[in-house]
Amino acid sequence: MPRPKPGEALIRVSLAGICGTDREILKGYSGFRGILGHEFVGRVVECEDKRWLDQRVVGEINVSCGECNLCLSGIGRHCPHRTVVGIVNRDGAFAEYIALPVVNLHSVPDTIPDEAAVFVEPLAAAAEVLEHVRSAPSPRAVVLGDGRLGLLIAQVLHQSQSKVTVVGKHASKLRLARSWGVKTSDLAVEKLPGAAFSLVVEASGSPEALDEALRLVEPQGTVVMKSTYREPAHFDTAKLVVDEIKLVGSRCGNFTTALDLLGGGKIRVQPLISKEFPLDAGREAFEYLDKKSCLKVLLAPHAGTTN
Amino acid sequence: MPRPKPGEALIRVSLAGICGTDREILKGYSGFRGILGHEFVGRVVECEDKRWLDQRVVGEINVSCGECNLCLSGIGRHCPHRTVVGIVNRDGAFAEYIALPVVNLHSVPDTIPDEAAVFVEPLAAAAEVLEHVRSAPSPRAVVLGDGRLGLLIAQVLHQSQSKVTVVGKHASKLRLARSWGVKTSDLAVEKLPGAAFSLVVEASGSPEALDEALRLVEPQGTVVMKSTYREPAHFDTAKLVVDEIKLVGSRCGNFTTALDLLGGGKIRVQPLISKEFPLDAGREAFEYLDKKSCLKVLLAPHAGTTN
Repeated sequence: MPRPKPGEALIRVSLAGICGTDREILKGYSGFRGILGHEFVGRVVECEDKRWLDQRVVGEINVSCGECNLCLSGIGRHCPHRTVVGIVNRDGAFAEYIALPVVNLHSVPDTIPDEAAVFVEPLAAAAEVLEHVRSAPSPRAVVLGDGRLGLLIAQVLHQSQSKVTVVGKHASKLRLARSWGVKTSDLAVEKLPGAAFSLVVEASGSPEALDEALRLVEPQGTVVMKSTYREPAHFDTAKLVVDEIKLVGSRCGNFTTALDLLGGGKIRVQPLISKEFPLDAGREAFEYLDKKSCLKVLLAPHAGTTN
Repeated sequence: MPRPKPGEALIRVSLAGICGTDREILKGYSGFRGILGHEFVGRVVECEDKRWLDQRVVGEINVSCGECNLCLSGIGRHCPHRTVVGIVNRDGAFAEYIALPVVNLHSVPDTIPDEAAVFVEPLAAAAEVLEHVRSAPSPRAVVLGDGRLGLLIAQVLHQSQSKVTVVGKHASKLRLARSWGVKTSDLAVEKLPGAAFSLVVEASGSPEALDEALRLVEPQGTVVMKSTYREPAHFDTAKLVVDEIKLVGSRCGNFTTALDLLGGGKIRVQPLISKEFPLDAGREAFEYLDKKSCLKVLLAPHAGTTN
């Protein structure tokens, strides 16, 4: 049982989501040791500030110092002294309980069930691409990758009136995207037309995709990179410079935006849930994630219990 | 003698500047065959529209179709059908005369002498970095490279109230920068502090500089790439994504901005002139450019003649 420090709340985890990053950490990325898990929804069971008691909450994952230049300039999520829930020096949400500063918490409106609220963290990260949609009329966007994140991004772009195509290799995942009205393509990326999209989102996780993304984007367009690769990526700098392209790294997003999207009913996340496991089947849950057709796997730490 | 097509003016070239791109083209870059030279100032000697006659002019280098989507959306400089003066399918300014569409011309005010006006094209490209200066108070910027372009960029950033440091290896070039009030560093790039600059401009032309630029930039900062490399560049995508960095390719700029900067007397370009050669000493001029201390070399096609 974690012991909340001053300013922290103790939260009973209702549901937690497994993310690609969790799998990378298991393989050694970031050298993290501790409890994994940074996507969750839960209920506050202990807190000095009694207004939080019994609130259903989601939590921002970067816990910053609040005092350095980056914190003071409003980008605490880049605080060099930060801990990150389940990723850097702070236990995560694959547990019955988690402690987190109340400044990191957001109340979840009653209209959003746990099975949707557990997507707030990845949906926030997905919605961050909206910052990079050119204000031009009917921007054309393409999302490389039909995984969890790619599908969320495609859906967010679609509801923002962008003409978006998601490119992937999984028939069932592309079918799901089409059910939301999103255009899909199962063509190999290299068969798509060059210089045809004002926004290209790289969410495929394949290092070769960067060169293809640069080929697909039109002059003065934007490539948003959501995937990280362990190997250094290479690319053609002449293309970047001559076509004056922006290549933007994007990690986290705004929780309030994600809660608004879910509350407004414009984004459907529950169809992404492939399976739910109790906490003690965690190993099995990670194995399930390796299935080709799998999208989101959830852990329910209190499944089958009454408290 | 070039024969101007309808809509074009015939210009008598007074001065032309040699650029790094010219040298790259001589080595085979872009496969161009024809007359080099895209930095020039001259006087209109023939034109259907008589208002241009006898005007002192500089000329934008991208000659676009005016009809494609990119032209219609205002970025004709990226027109896929464009020719580019002295670079792509169009003869350049290392000649007594050049023909260019009047829509590409800008009149040069009398307050700007030829020796300054010949810098309009590279100064416009340099001033483009101002688009990427964060609106934060006193942004800290670093320019990698103390060549012609690096020094112009440093000067433009300095007059825009950025705290700018230019990093280079040439004592005389750094001394020139200091004479303008610009901070300089002759440290190796890897000795500069990491995550310390909101804007990093890569103008050194060295492929290794990209990784260093990413190391120097602070979270959510911007790296502007001005150099192109023939080899693909490698970089650490995790850094780009986790720190949410923008990597922006930048090529051309706005001629009106450059003319304003020169007219206002805020930018001093004439100290960058290392030597002037007559046109028939062109080969010698290119050799002179290889000297370590050399900055800008000019060609004067009518030097020593009276007409």
